[in-house]
Amino acid sequence: MFYYKEELINPIVPDQPDPAAARVLQEILGGHYGEMRTMMQFFFQSSNFRGKDTQFRDLIRGIFLEEIAHVELVQNTINQLLNGSGESNAPGDSGADHAPLDETVLHANPHHYIIGAQASLPVDAAGNPWNGSWVYSHGNLIGDLLDNLILESTGVLQKSRIYEMSSNKTFRETLAFLIVRDNAHQNAYAKALETLGVNWGKLFPVPNYDINKYPECRKYVELGYHNVQFNFRLDQTRIGEIFSGQTPSRNGGDLAVVEPPQGFPVPLMPEMPNEHSPGTKDMNF
Amino acid sequence: MFYYKEELINPIVPDQPDPAAARVLQEILGGHYGEMRTMMQFFFQSSNFRGKDTQFRDLIRGIFLEEIAHVELVQNTINQLLNGSGESNAPGDSGADHAPLDETVLHANPHHYIIGAQASLPVDAAGNPWNGSWVYSHGNLIGDLLDNLILESTGVLQKSRIYEMSSNKTFRETLAFLIVRDNAHQNAYAKALETLGVNWGKLFPVPNYDINKYPECRKYVELGYHNVQFNFRLDQTRIGEIFSGQTPSRNGGDLAVVEPPQGFPVPLMPEMPNEHSPGTKDMNF
Amino acid sequence: MFYYKEELINPIVPDQPDPAAARVLQEILGGHYGEMRTMMQFFFQSSNFRGKDTQFRDLIRGIFLEEIAHVELVQNTINQLLNGSGESNAPGDSGADHAPLDETVLHANPHHYIIGAQASLPVDAAGNPWNGSWVYSHGNLIGDLLDNLILESTGVLQKSRIYEMSSNKTFRETLAFLIVRDNAHQNAYAKALETLGVNWGKLFPVPNYDINKYPECRKYVELGYHNVQFNFRLDQTRIGEIFSGQTPSRNGGDLAVVEPPQGFPVPLMPEMPNEHSPGTKDMNF
Amino acid sequence: MFYYKEELINPIVPDQPDPAAARVLQEILGGHYGEMRTMMQFFFQSSNFRGKDTQFRDLIRGIFLEEIAHVELVQNTINQLLNGSGESNAPGDSGADHAPLDETVLHANPHHYIIGAQASLPVDAAGNPWNGSWVYSHGNLIGDLLDNLILESTGVLQKSRIYEMSSNKTFRETLAFLIVRDNAHQNAYAKALETLGVNWGKLFPVPNYDINKYPECRKYVELGYHNVQFNFRLDQTRIGEIFSGQTPSRNGGDLAVVEPPQGFPVPLMPEMPNEHSPGTKDMNF
Amino acid sequence: MFYYKEELINPIVPDQPDPAAARVLQEILGGHYGEMRTMMQFFFQSSNFRGKDTQFRDLIRGIFLEEIAHVELVQNTINQLLNGSGESNAPGDSGADHAPLDETVLHANPHHYIIGAQASLPVDAAGNPWNGSWVYSHGNLIGDLLDNLILESTGVLQKSRIYEMSSNKTFRETLAFLIVRDNAHQNAYAKALETLGVNWGKLFPVPNYDINKYPECRKYVELGYHNVQFNFRLDQTRIGEIFSGQTPSRNGGDLAVVEPPQGFPVPLMPEMPNEHSPGTKDMNF
Amino acid sequence: MFYYKEELINPIVPDQPDPAAARVLQEILGGHYGEMRTMMQFFFQSSNFRGKDTQFRDLIRGIFLEEIAHVELVQNTINQLLNGSGESNAPGDSGADHAPLDETVLHANPHHYIIGAQASLPVDAAGNPWNGSWVYSHGNLIGDLLDNLILESTGVLQKSRIYEMSSNKTFRETLAFLIVRDNAHQNAYAKALETLGVNWGKLFPVPNYDINKYPECRKYVELGYHNVQFNFRLDQTRIGEIFSGQTPSRNGGDLAVVEPPQGFPVPLMPEMPNEHSPGTKDMNF
Repeated sequence: MFYYKEELINPIVPDQPDPAAARVLQEILGGHYGEMRTMMQFFFQSSNFRGKDTQFRDLIRGIFLEEIAHVELVQNTINQLLNGSGESNAPGDSGADHAPLDETVLHANPHHYIIGAQASLPVDAAGNPWNGSWVYSHGNLIGDLLDNLILESTGVLQKSRIYEMSSNKTFRETLAFLIVRDNAHQNAYAKALETLGVNWGKLFPVPNYDINKYPECRKYVELGYHNVQFNFRLDQTRIGEIFSGQTPSRNGGDLAVVEPPQGFPVPLMPEMPNEHSPGTKDMNF
Repeated sequence: MFYYKEELINPIVPDQPDPAAARVLQEILGGHYGEMRTMMQFFFQSSNFRGKDTQFRDLIRGIFLEEIAHVELVQNTINQLLNGSGESNAPGDSGADHAPLDETVLHANPHHYIIGAQASLPVDAAGNPWNGSWVYSHGNLIGDLLDNLILESTGVLQKSRIYEMSSNKTFRETLAFLIVRDNAHQNAYAKALETLGVNWGKLFPVPNYDINKYPECRKYVELGYHNVQFNFRLDQTRIGEIFSGQTPSRNGGDLAVVEPPQGFPVPLMPEMPNEHSPGTKDMNF
Repeated sequence: MFYYKEELINPIVPDQPDPAAARVLQEILGGHYGEMRTMMQFFFQSSNFRGKDTQFRDLIRGIFLEEIAHVELVQNTINQLLNGSGESNAPGDSGADHAPLDETVLHANPHHYIIGAQASLPVDAAGNPWNGSWVYSHGNLIGDLLDNLILESTGVLQKSRIYEMSSNKTFRETLAFLIVRDNAHQNAYAKALETLGVNWGKLFPVPNYDINKYPECRKYVELGYHNVQFNFRLDQTRIGEIFSGQTPSRNGGDLAVVEPPQGFPVPLMPEMPNEHSPGTKDMNF
Repeated sequence: MFYYKEELINPIVPDQPDPAAARVLQEILGGHYGEMRTMMQFFFQSSNFRGKDTQFRDLIRGIFLEEIAHVELVQNTINQLLNGSGESNAPGDSGADHAPLDETVLHANPHHYIIGAQASLPVDAAGNPWNGSWVYSHGNLIGDLLDNLILESTGVLQKSRIYEMSSNKTFRETLAFLIVRDNAHQNAYAKALETLGVNWGKLFPVPNYDINKYPECRKYVELGYHNVQFNFRLDQTRIGEIFSGQTPSRNGGDLAVVEPPQGFPVPLMPEMPNEHSPGTKDMNF
Repeated sequence: MFYYKEELINPIVPDQPDPAAARVLQEILGGHYGEMRTMMQFFFQSSNFRGKDTQFRDLIRGIFLEEIAHVELVQNTINQLLNGSGESNAPGDSGADHAPLDETVLHANPHHYIIGAQASLPVDAAGNPWNGSWVYSHGNLIGDLLDNLILESTGVLQKSRIYEMSSNKTFRETLAFLIVRDNAHQNAYAKALETLGVNWGKLFPVPNYDINKYPECRKYVELGYHNVQFNFRLDQTRIGEIFSGQTPSRNGGDLAVVEPPQGFPVPLMPEMPNEHSPGTKDMNF
Repeated sequence: MFYYKEELINPIVPDQPDPAAARVLQEILGGHYGEMRTMMQFFFQSSNFRGKDTQFRDLIRGIFLEEIAHVELVQNTINQLLNGSGESNAPGDSGADHAPLDETVLHANPHHYIIGAQASLPVDAAGNPWNGSWVYSHGNLIGDLLDNLILESTGVLQKSRIYEMSSNKTFRETLAFLIVRDNAHQNAYAKALETLGVNWGKLFPVPNYDINKYPECRKYVELGYHNVQFNFRLDQTRIGEIFSGQTPSRNGGDLAVVEPPQGFPVPLMPEMPNEHSPGTKDMNF
């Protein structure tokens, strides 16, 4: 069973709305290699695990738990990027010759303003809905670990590419945090395969990202976030049997299971009358 | 952030494998009105909530937390129904004129034996993958509550129909538990709409299921599970501002927020060499 | 605007339930080349028509109108094949060792018993949902006519193949009627291309079906249904400028626009308490 | 069977082409909560209806008939918004350094210019094709009515949001008419549930739209279009047993079944040689 | 079995990057009527062919072989249009207030920069993935030929429409070559139906494109590319039994099977460090 | 450009029809990890390759070429399993009380008899169409190689699981050949990663299949097919720079690039009048 504290795993840094950034950030939420995929893939692999070597199951499940918090973080980041983006600034904007959203939606995913009230959706950067066929849970441990490894590597890859698409601070801070965490999860799966006999040489991290290009990453690396796994279990776990000792990455350091970060506030979004959200203004309750 | 204890929300009752039952039970996991949908829909609605009346957000989020445990329960139930279903009983079964799975897959979802190692998948009873376009999170509170209400009602409806498709005890126990819990969640959303001024008369429960037709439900009703909401929050929640007082159902009783059930063991599945799962027999670790 | 009389275009012939037949007949309703496709394709082509040669638009629209009635006919046929198929005959069937639907769903589309209350769905014979990408409305008249021609030819082809899958009379009568009507619509589009200069030689009908293999077709051919187009317009139409004169088929005869068939009763389906349908038994209204 | 008069249910108001508006208006045609969905959902529910309380079936079917005309209206509106949008104004536009569509398609759905000849498509505002899995026809009357109610409420919600995306008159007039009609259909399903015992208090209309924000709506409200249902039946119907008496909306008034609106001309679209539509210029016929 | 020489079937003409052109050109690669569809459709029809009249199978297979080269050509054209489009020109572009891709992706398919490293994808112009349900291989020869004919006609139609969307030379040259080749394949299927008795009159080519509007086409027509079929077989083929004699097109000329074009270089794409492609800079190999 | 000789890469071993086997074998053709995926994935990776280390591109392209032949082999195998499966043996089978296909389709994919004339389709074992979103071509070489490695490993895994589903010889021979070839391709990608510094230890082959359980594999292993790559290039290739030296598999041996196998006849399928295939019996040609 699953328990919750209303705290985000990383802060939402304030900046201006940026609907074009929100559109591309959807890839990280609902894309083929996004956080919904990692969350569901590790969930299915955890529940479908076979055999007694449950240290692997506990590793996968431990990362699954963090991925739920990642989904929550990206939802909130997208919401912040959209929030207020479609509001009219001037009086009379809904007059005959101008509409408050006409410019806004040109470079946005229009569904952000039609289906949602300027809020996140389970779709990718091109507007395609999340699809269950993407989940890989084949029951062969090596297959599952290799697929998880490539999934986390692609996570870093795509996030570093999306990072280039806006200099918005809300956007980049979340991406930077997730790049470093994906790196940690890459280390986790690479280490698990090391216990099965693989020596990775200097292959990882993949991609070989230069921390100087992503300055927001630096503080997370300095906190050691690329080499730790947060423990969200309220009971015992064997995760430390795998996630310990020397990192498989050429960047060095030792792996360690640690407490989750202090939590950060979940932003409360204002009412948005133009979107009829929540739309209960005149109710008596 | 999300925390976890390795305990199921309800026991897995032992019985024989039943792959045809596993096939139809997939609807409850990955179908249009299944637990993955409720989980993701309430997740998005929680994160996308607007305005200060956070008692509604806390209600939706509280149910979301339970839905994660429902997904876990259905995954484990499907696994139990599949587990061992494709194993050969007789010597020489993989000989020239017989294959151990030939009869098994005739009435099964073949993907249970190809993609998974006799394990659950994010698909529905017809084998279609789960689809993100099904999630409804429109930001209008009344719209969201009404849609959640019909979603939980359809949950009971489909589960009572699927119940007729096998008398397997593993299958029926999980269905019976979920029928009663969907009834509770139906009460939750109906009650929320009551606070906005609706009087439901004698409309609920929908469908108007007769507890005598689903004998496994009785003990859950006697425990009052149709009128309680389990609280998975580790911090404060305003859920009780809505989920309290008289039930909106004609079956009567008072609503109450309570502690989650005692946990039940997550079954450990045996190795399955024919499916190469986990397939690490000869590794040295 | 569209008007309606509650009458089917052809009778529903009574026979036993046959859920396996209902499963494959779904292809004719929600498949890539089924009646929903023809209905929507001709609807879009009618509305999107360009230019003054509206005799072509009126031809396409005229067939569109009939296709709505075909959708209704196939929905009702599937319902008849499903109706009662999952009802228990013996007392105590929902007891511990037997479930009323366990055998029924083995060769059925389980969604017929889960999503619908033993009723038709917008899906194909493999359970895939109808998809808008199948509609062809490209605005080039020759392209549209050729595509409509192949669509109607495939209609006959698939119906004659499905005909072999059950000897159920309800099933075969509807298929036989639609085979002959698809033949008429094939003639319509072939004739339209004749007016643009094509001489088809002896190519049609495609496929070259032998009426003796589909004895139910005979009466419809004797009625001349392969060479007429029913007129559902309440105002003027130019359809006769194309649909007249010698048939383009080697089977001969003259094309004519005629009144629709006398209508046939739309069956009223009984309540089905096991499926909670309609499920209002205890309501006071 | 279905009959037709070539008349639109509401006029197409002339204005300039606006391909960005056409793109977002596709949501109302082929989106999850668009007119194709309402049309098909009410069609399936009508044909799949069980039991003797056919006043409900006649209500659903009556609204289905109007939805076909809504699909036709939205197709024609999109066509008007696209028509001529991609034509070159200047001589020599297809020369070496400029192409007539290069600017046009930047903010358009490119499929409007590739698949269709500047014409409507069965897709949503993000370009995803219409999907049959969206149709809800579960056979439980209360479930179906609740789902129809939320579907019509979402119709108003999305249309009022899309209204903000362009001040084009063609676009806004169609949206305004449909907002008021969706309101009427919301009243229809809310009233049907009233007959089953629900008292809605002051919940409806959902969303609680302010008519002053959508000035084009006013005349339709003054005509009473929010409280009437047009009758497209050529035979008897029991719809009036439900759709009569006091409206369930707090805006007040009495419900009444009335004749359809006088019809309005279906625009005839000009040839578009650049799109090869219809492309029969040199044919002899 | 299939053999390969690293040569393109037509040259890639150099010009500036044009990501908006790349986006729409995806239709020709991964769209409903694109080259992946023709390739796979003719592949399935070839392998599934029934009967002894293998001259038809050899015709279909011969065109299939060319379509593989068309897919390769369009992939390379898209790559050329994307290559370098997202590179920063100015120093310090990844600084705090500007990102190198922010303007670039506004009118692009963002997946070109997220999933691929500025490279082609199996999707259409609206970003929808290629779908196997589009393939038509029904086994009825006339049906298959008619469908292939309309497929090739739509190929010309869509390419001529896309041609208007950019004056980029890389883009237009590939489109022009493919327009003429689709015309040849249209002739092939029209001729095959002629051998079965059809006389097309002056119907083809469809659409009736004016070569003066697509000046890049002229040289290919002068080379006779609209009336030849390239032979990629290393063994015997009966294709010439159909593809010979007078063209079915009103443009005249004789059909002939000829050697493939001389090959053209496959461009080698530079490393793209910003996209981490290939991302092996620091490896020792 | 691509050239062809009409020869299969492995023989089709004769046996009885087996439509249930054909249904599950579709996974190997059109499934998420089937031959269409490997073919298209390696095609896109080859064309989208960046940088000068073209030995990797030539390796990927070399395997792509073989995958086209694999697709052809599986299409022909499925056809053989279906061929004649639906034919009636007894006289009068299409009489009033029996249909020749009624039993046949119960455990088959009905589309094999409706869409195709008892022939292969681009779908998976559950009937879902092939989907372009499955293709991984991300442009990061390590990412691509790791994904290809897991793709080939999953190929062996799924084929060994499907092998258990029928003892039909046609079915098993093709699976056995492909298991050994997937093993070779697994070796290829594992070796490529070795050149980038990885030491796999004893991890491969994945899964660790026991050749004694798949006796048909033995002869292919004895031919060394698990350690060779067939060369389908008509020009130079750098593939041998990677595919040479010691295998990365613990089963040992040296890798070598060799000539393709001698070709085997492509079966000619008989006419099937009941399916109207090819359906030209009465034509004069």
